[in-house]
Amino acid sequence: MIRKASEATVVVGQKFSGPGEAWSAQILNEGEFAGKGRLFNYMVLKPGVGVGKHRHSGDFEAYYILEGEGRYDDNGKEVVVGKGDITICHDGEEHAIYNAGPEDLKLVALILFTGK
Amino acid sequence: MIRKASEATVVVGQKFSGPGEAWSAQILNEGEFAGKGRLFNYMVLKPGVGVGKHRHSGDFEAYYILEGEGRYDDNGKEVVVGKGDITICHDGEEHAIYNAGPEDLKLVALILFTGK
Repeated sequence: MIRKASEATVVVGQKFSGPGEAWSAQILNEGEFAGKGRLFNYMVLKPGVGVGKHRHSGDFEAYYILEGEGRYDDNGKEVVVGKGDITICHDGEEHAIYNAGPEDLKLVALILFTGK
Repeated sequence: MIRKASEATVVVGQKFSGPGEAWSAQILNEGEFAGKGRLFNYMVLKPGVGVGKHRHSGDFEAYYILEGEGRYDDNGKEVVVGKGDITICHDGEEHAIYNAGPEDLKLVALILFTGK
């Protein structure tokens, strides 16, 4: 099955009270995860835009940084992330990401459930 | 948890008898899927490189095309895919992808299990 880019579900909005509006294209839509997860998105954060800090409970989230530079809050520790870096917020941990750089920050995010 | 790009597991090799060698960085490594899947990779196919046709059984695979142009075999039907396009090979179906373009074909691949 092919879903052309123009048919992808796009979500634009504030994320967890972060600054600005994040742009996301859903790679998998609701009902397409075989019950294994709940988010698989390509996300673009413009300069000054961020996803606010939030805790994961019952699932975990991985980011893969494609382009740009981000300030990542790794369960309370701040780290600079860039192209090719991987972040994993385990079940029970908190994270946030903010584009403090001059270019768009592009990443892929995946949330999988941790329960049976 | 952060895994810098330089620490990611990189796999280079032929995929399902496809032409050339695919380059993949593992976003999640074995044991990091909470039992929900088995592959979450960033993949680069140079011009002339492809993933050979193969059938999925017990899982499904989604590709998200980041850059370049691919010739995708969607369970027997050939389709041209490019930036932002999404492909889903459902459980029981076959697929393949080949870089017939002049630029690198870059994509993210995710395989999740379909069983309980």
